[in-house]
Amino acid sequence: MEKALSKTWSERFDKGLNPFIEKFNASIEFDICLLEEDLDGSIAHARMLGIQGIITKEEALRLENGLQQIRKEASDGLFHPVISDEDVHFAVEKKLIDLIGPVGKKLHTGRSRNDQVGTDLRLWLRKRIDEIDMDLVRLQKSLFLLAEENLYTLIPGYTHLQRAQPLSLAHHLLAYIEMAQRDRNRLKDVRKRVNISPLGAAALAGTSISISRKITSSELHFQGIYSNSLDAVSDRDFVVEFLGASSLIMAHLSRLSEEVILWASEEFAFIQLTDRCATGSSLMPQKKNPDVPELVRGKSGRVFGHLQAMLTMIKGLPLAYNKDFQEDKEAIFDSVKTVKNSLIAISILFEEGLIFRKERLNQAVSSDFSNATDVADYLVAKDIPFREAYQLVGRIVKTSLEEGILLKDIPLERWKTFHKFFEKDIYEKLLPSSVVESRLSAGGTGFERVQEQLLSWREKLFN
Amino acid sequence: MEKALSKTWSERFDKGLNPFIEKFNASIEFDICLLEEDLDGSIAHARMLGIQGIITKEEALRLENGLQQIRKEASDGLFHPVISDEDVHFAVEKKLIDLIGPVGKKLHTGRSRNDQVGTDLRLWLRKRIDEIDMDLVRLQKSLFLLAEENLYTLIPGYTHLQRAQPLSLAHHLLAYIEMAQRDRNRLKDVRKRVNISPLGAAALAGTSISISRKITSSELHFQGIYSNSLDAVSDRDFVVEFLGASSLIMAHLSRLSEEVILWASEEFAFIQLTDRCATGSSLMPQKKNPDVPELVRGKSGRVFGHLQAMLTMIKGLPLAYNKDFQEDKEAIFDSVKTVKNSLIAISILFEEGLIFRKERLNQAVSSDFSNATDVADYLVAKDIPFREAYQLVGRIVKTSLEEGILLKDIPLERWKTFHKFFEKDIYEKLLPSSVVESRLSAGGTGFERVQEQLLSWREKLFN
Amino acid sequence: MEKALSKTWSERFDKGLNPFIEKFNASIEFDICLLEEDLDGSIAHARMLGIQGIITKEEALRLENGLQQIRKEASDGLFHPVISDEDVHFAVEKKLIDLIGPVGKKLHTGRSRNDQVGTDLRLWLRKRIDEIDMDLVRLQKSLFLLAEENLYTLIPGYTHLQRAQPLSLAHHLLAYIEMAQRDRNRLKDVRKRVNISPLGAAALAGTSISISRKITSSELHFQGIYSNSLDAVSDRDFVVEFLGASSLIMAHLSRLSEEVILWASEEFAFIQLTDRCATGSSLMPQKKNPDVPELVRGKSGRVFGHLQAMLTMIKGLPLAYNKDFQEDKEAIFDSVKTVKNSLIAISILFEEGLIFRKERLNQAVSSDFSNATDVADYLVAKDIPFREAYQLVGRIVKTSLEEGILLKDIPLERWKTFHKFFEKDIYEKLLPSSVVESRLSAGGTGFERVQEQLLSWREKLFN
Amino acid sequence: MEKALSKTWSERFDKGLNPFIEKFNASIEFDICLLEEDLDGSIAHARMLGIQGIITKEEALRLENGLQQIRKEASDGLFHPVISDEDVHFAVEKKLIDLIGPVGKKLHTGRSRNDQVGTDLRLWLRKRIDEIDMDLVRLQKSLFLLAEENLYTLIPGYTHLQRAQPLSLAHHLLAYIEMAQRDRNRLKDVRKRVNISPLGAAALAGTSISISRKITSSELHFQGIYSNSLDAVSDRDFVVEFLGASSLIMAHLSRLSEEVILWASEEFAFIQLTDRCATGSSLMPQKKNPDVPELVRGKSGRVFGHLQAMLTMIKGLPLAYNKDFQEDKEAIFDSVKTVKNSLIAISILFEEGLIFRKERLNQAVSSDFSNATDVADYLVAKDIPFREAYQLVGRIVKTSLEEGILLKDIPLERWKTFHKFFEKDIYEKLLPSSVVESRLSAGGTGFERVQEQLLSWREKLFN
Repeated sequence: MEKALSKTWSERFDKGLNPFIEKFNASIEFDICLLEEDLDGSIAHARMLGIQGIITKEEALRLENGLQQIRKEASDGLFHPVISDEDVHFAVEKKLIDLIGPVGKKLHTGRSRNDQVGTDLRLWLRKRIDEIDMDLVRLQKSLFLLAEENLYTLIPGYTHLQRAQPLSLAHHLLAYIEMAQRDRNRLKDVRKRVNISPLGAAALAGTSISISRKITSSELHFQGIYSNSLDAVSDRDFVVEFLGASSLIMAHLSRLSEEVILWASEEFAFIQLTDRCATGSSLMPQKKNPDVPELVRGKSGRVFGHLQAMLTMIKGLPLAYNKDFQEDKEAIFDSVKTVKNSLIAISILFEEGLIFRKERLNQAVSSDFSNATDVADYLVAKDIPFREAYQLVGRIVKTSLEEGILLKDIPLERWKTFHKFFEKDIYEKLLPSSVVESRLSAGGTGFERVQEQLLSWREKLFN
Repeated sequence: MEKALSKTWSERFDKGLNPFIEKFNASIEFDICLLEEDLDGSIAHARMLGIQGIITKEEALRLENGLQQIRKEASDGLFHPVISDEDVHFAVEKKLIDLIGPVGKKLHTGRSRNDQVGTDLRLWLRKRIDEIDMDLVRLQKSLFLLAEENLYTLIPGYTHLQRAQPLSLAHHLLAYIEMAQRDRNRLKDVRKRVNISPLGAAALAGTSISISRKITSSELHFQGIYSNSLDAVSDRDFVVEFLGASSLIMAHLSRLSEEVILWASEEFAFIQLTDRCATGSSLMPQKKNPDVPELVRGKSGRVFGHLQAMLTMIKGLPLAYNKDFQEDKEAIFDSVKTVKNSLIAISILFEEGLIFRKERLNQAVSSDFSNATDVADYLVAKDIPFREAYQLVGRIVKTSLEEGILLKDIPLERWKTFHKFFEKDIYEKLLPSSVVESRLSAGGTGFERVQEQLLSWREKLFN
Repeated sequence: MEKALSKTWSERFDKGLNPFIEKFNASIEFDICLLEEDLDGSIAHARMLGIQGIITKEEALRLENGLQQIRKEASDGLFHPVISDEDVHFAVEKKLIDLIGPVGKKLHTGRSRNDQVGTDLRLWLRKRIDEIDMDLVRLQKSLFLLAEENLYTLIPGYTHLQRAQPLSLAHHLLAYIEMAQRDRNRLKDVRKRVNISPLGAAALAGTSISISRKITSSELHFQGIYSNSLDAVSDRDFVVEFLGASSLIMAHLSRLSEEVILWASEEFAFIQLTDRCATGSSLMPQKKNPDVPELVRGKSGRVFGHLQAMLTMIKGLPLAYNKDFQEDKEAIFDSVKTVKNSLIAISILFEEGLIFRKERLNQAVSSDFSNATDVADYLVAKDIPFREAYQLVGRIVKTSLEEGILLKDIPLERWKTFHKFFEKDIYEKLLPSSVVESRLSAGGTGFERVQEQLLSWREKLFN
Repeated sequence: MEKALSKTWSERFDKGLNPFIEKFNASIEFDICLLEEDLDGSIAHARMLGIQGIITKEEALRLENGLQQIRKEASDGLFHPVISDEDVHFAVEKKLIDLIGPVGKKLHTGRSRNDQVGTDLRLWLRKRIDEIDMDLVRLQKSLFLLAEENLYTLIPGYTHLQRAQPLSLAHHLLAYIEMAQRDRNRLKDVRKRVNISPLGAAALAGTSISISRKITSSELHFQGIYSNSLDAVSDRDFVVEFLGASSLIMAHLSRLSEEVILWASEEFAFIQLTDRCATGSSLMPQKKNPDVPELVRGKSGRVFGHLQAMLTMIKGLPLAYNKDFQEDKEAIFDSVKTVKNSLIAISILFEEGLIFRKERLNQAVSSDFSNATDVADYLVAKDIPFREAYQLVGRIVKTSLEEGILLKDIPLERWKTFHKFFEKDIYEKLLPSSVVESRLSAGGTGFERVQEQLLSWREKLFN
């Protein structure tokens, strides 16, 4: 019992914790990764206590030095909290008192673990958001460099996984750069709401001690402080919001992964996997498997699951802090790891893991009916109402399929029997490159439009 | 088969759809609620076709008039699409051709259902977001008016559902106003990404017809256009983002609901439910049940579920449009309905459904140990290190509990035995009102601080 | 207020409900579909009250006749509950009193809505489970008939969507029949726990009236009764369990759908979609889209979402009944509809919506390295350790890929240079049909094994 | 590159894996916990190869001995796989070859990692299910012992968290024992579907090597084998099913936790937390927090999240094995840990963490209107139709509330004015103990009924 009774809060208790319960409650095994941020937060708090005259300047300095010494010991691998330390906050406070004596007992003046853990988690997540932002840029660059090389490479465009209209491969890749950009913008919005200081909200009600929340907030580079102490310690919106934004990143990666998996199949054969990112089978010697995109696709569910876990966790909780909140940490930590690793893995995949088979791609777009819309548009240009033109082309496609010929192989006289407006120039229109080239509406796949987009992205990404 | 062969796209097909499949595929039963927006989008598109000279101005006008006539017939209850119309888009096009003849066949020039449905859904959701914003303001106002009345009403503040420190009831209610404000800010961020026009992205690749996407975008008051046509028709991020923001609204409402349910229990008895929002039991004549907050709490899962459904739906889908997307509508429609109704119901609950029992509240805060922190702070002010003071008070509380007395009832001489620094003024500190009054840190529950918050919110909400 | 004060429970109340709240609380709009079961349950209850002598036999008969009359009126379209009736239970009770006078007021003796709604929902779901079971059988039969025709049709087998080893198409289809069988078994297990009667648990505590729960249970063909009245009215496990089983059905259908979508692509071209289950595009006249499997794949998320909604709903609810439970109905109703429609749609798809392109399939299996494992097994049969044989074949495949030849085209002398054990019979082994034929381990794709499976399934499905 | 090229499957590859990708793909860090089961499966496989004459008996013995030696080394802490070993299966195979030389290369004959990992995971999960079953029994026993002590302790029964009718505390606790029993039955059903052997399904198609799946299945105590090799390696239903059953366990625990949290509040004060399972606050010296039930309640979302993750993961995956499946392990491992720890923690809580405050409980049931139904039933016994009686009592309750008196305090003459049927015996009926005693319907809270239940559970749990 000795051990348990040495808890910080144990004076009000007679007996120690049941050892299983002690371990069950403890978060030190995973929240130790908040150590840096816990020290940063405590240093800011200590300085503020000094500035406000709540403790002397000299005491503040001793607290700060002690905390810095813990940082040093930790980085030297000499800081080893144990289960009975409960969490990173108590582990640090205890160690501090060990190091600098009774003055260490002044550190927790005017704050509570409730505002402290909120501060730590926000500081930690703020850094990770900035890292993920860089990972998104890396992905954009990897995709961009391939896009730039492949403005004139054609690839079938699909709807319903049926060939629809041919595309510039660059255009296809740029679509994912757009998604990543939306992800970045979303993270920026999330970051605004992460970057608010709860420090000084204390347990739930604020404090009667004359702390300055502005000082600690500015010391820690927060953009502002929570206006309501209850809200400050009860708010986990930022966790959910971050997981929502992360889920969309994973959804985008899962879509890109699905495409790579399709492209790498013998049937599509649009890409070749290099040895750098593919693995083999334990039984089938010929296999070369797209493990990376499969894993990433599979991991999307993991982040969606954490999002649901957090929504479930906060559902129906009365104000203010409840221990249920302890669950937020592992969900966040695992999601950050998953998102970062997935972004990097997919970037590497596009950097060195796949080669587009251009001959296959160019051949693919020549042997289907994905130029049918252009026949309709040809007639529209001659003032046939669109729906009428469309229906005529529907009949032409049906006949051609039955006869087993492609549109480009229909003789002109046959075209004439379909409609008198067809002229020799229809053949030019049917070429995949013409089809792509002609899509000059804003945002379209026409080379001119895509070229503009490439220039604009080069500017954004490499300047 | 006749019927099925009359499908817009039926020229390429020989046989009609299996009738079960026709019904299974059709979305007209629920997407009919996009009618207004479909007409708005089509009118903008028709005007643009005229401006661009793709059709004549006169044709454009006839299209617009026909579309307005459909709007009128619909508002007169005379527009009755059937299952074989498939969806609202085809229903409108067919009706238009019925009304104005072959020129109606020109409407679909240079667009596809893929960009059309994306446009409609965004227009619809943009309106709903603005409505939800107003519903959030109503909730804020309902809470605010109660807060303003209850600056000096005290309520126990809880952590872990254990009494922690007494609060101003106004402070407690303001915490939810803060949450609602975050919800509003989040919706504003979502709205930015909803408010982008996909119109003119056509099926996936843009079009060779010389449309102007800027014109339709500005006609429809979008803030900009998608830069990439593939992304434009494949993007459902805005659906997920909206459901994420909606989930947080519901999470907040579920927390508030939980509190109301607790407060209405015989054990808490902090409020009385009025007859306006409570219901009875079929068996137990004495019951008066807090159905409204219970239902709202239960409905939180509904919106979380829709969020999960949409993430699952987009997971692993290759570009561009896939029919899976059809599932986005019911999820969005039901979520909007749920969020709006829940916000209104909870607003009504606070407007006319409950009465705070002030005497009970004031009594509650007097009979517990929620002033213990203040004893510690009392010693801290006399330069006892916080942790030491805290541990001493822990012992005092334990002793008092064993002896069955409250802190306020400990005689001064006894206080002295605990620590010589205790003086007569300790009794003043122990009063719940003093405890609350003293929490003057920024964002704290001190009356002065809360009063400032009330003034600031009155400004924001009623000006 | 009049209207609201006419509520069954309104004697304890002074004022009527706020009209918005009345509508918000009411479930009659969707729980009306429990009408049949509510009448069945009430008739059983009425009979029991008569048998037990709690009311007279004659009264019991009048109650039963009145209830049957409501059933008749409803089936004639003459029963029109309104919002102010609150729910199907009160609507029926009110109508009954209208029809048969004061004796109708005896119906609710010894029961509560809490046990009543649990009874209705279980009765309803029990029927639906039996229907879904039949829908699963239909799917199995549709797949089976195709399997039986295609024992000797070969199809590439995939792992990681890379060609792995060729399969009998029948074997591939049988895999889904196995999944459907597991779904049936799971539903059977769920049904056991659905089929328990809560009737007579009353509000939560049982009743002092001398009812017989055994009689009503047996009248309603329940398998037993809940042993604990609190548990009886608080248990929604069966809802979650049913949604879990439904989620797996949808997961299976989503996998099958994904395969159909792949097979229907120009790249795979393993099937041709018929006009009966495919639709066209509004813009691209050539399109023929696999809408049915796409929709089903998309709908999987919907059921997963309902599952999540229900888990969230019950999370953290204290005993016994809480109004949150009202949310269970729409989740169940929509899931049942989704599962049934998806099963039927996919059955139709396999019955008349697709044609396997056998020539393409047979050709596909001849032009890859999916016979590589067999080369390793060839060597294993000559006592080369598997891993060694495997590694040698890995090198052979690599060389062949570089040289652009298939294994079957390697000259015998070349085989000899790889390993002296290779003989002329290697060519026989490399034939896709030999490869398939040889997989004779239990459950393998060898024709003999598959034939046995076909016979066994014919027995199970058609006898 | 050296390192990577030493992969088992590396002969078909020229270059090594990118080191980041190698780590990203590797599962050895977490699947090492399948080591026991991997060895068991491999030993069974080796024995079977010997029995079938695929290898010699002596070779089989050497394989088995080698595998046993790995087990020993592992238990001695001497087996240290590294990232480049990829997964537990390759790590074991490599180590085996190190230990016993080339004969080790024969182990993988006639199987693949696809069936191997499926086998391992099922073996592992089967054990864990049996452990969880025991944990559920422990919970039942802990609750039972308290129930047995508290047959005659009364506790308010709630619906809508409003006092409804008084209960025997034993009856309340028994409700949770029923839930746990349903959990056990569900796990038993899940176990049936876990306990099927995929071993010998090989990669996806079975094998041409004359293995016997029956032998390995029976060696490993499986109940049967998968009938279809494709299904065998593609099926993750058992993972989802297990997580579904686990989610319900957590849902039950979250409900029980919520009740404990309520009971421990100052407002309810139905229990006292002992020091063994409660913790303090860092700031508020008086706090004693119910961390255990809060954590468990919070952890429910964690398991729900894993369930959603797995459903998302399998959604839309084509047959057969896909790398996405690798994600199943961490979800399962973490869920098992969470469920087991939560069950044990809550058991400890009921064993030594809380004390029911019987005087508070008995007092609670005397001071409310939870005997109102009994007044209605009193009249029903005198042949007043239930609904009429109910409405009369509604009016009596309203009047009493206005007058501030309880039913038991209404004078007899006053009762008479409400209805002439009221006699002096009404007071007896109003006693909480009479109210509880009278609920003698099957499953009701009447002491006689509860006593029967107690006897029946004692029989089941302790014999």
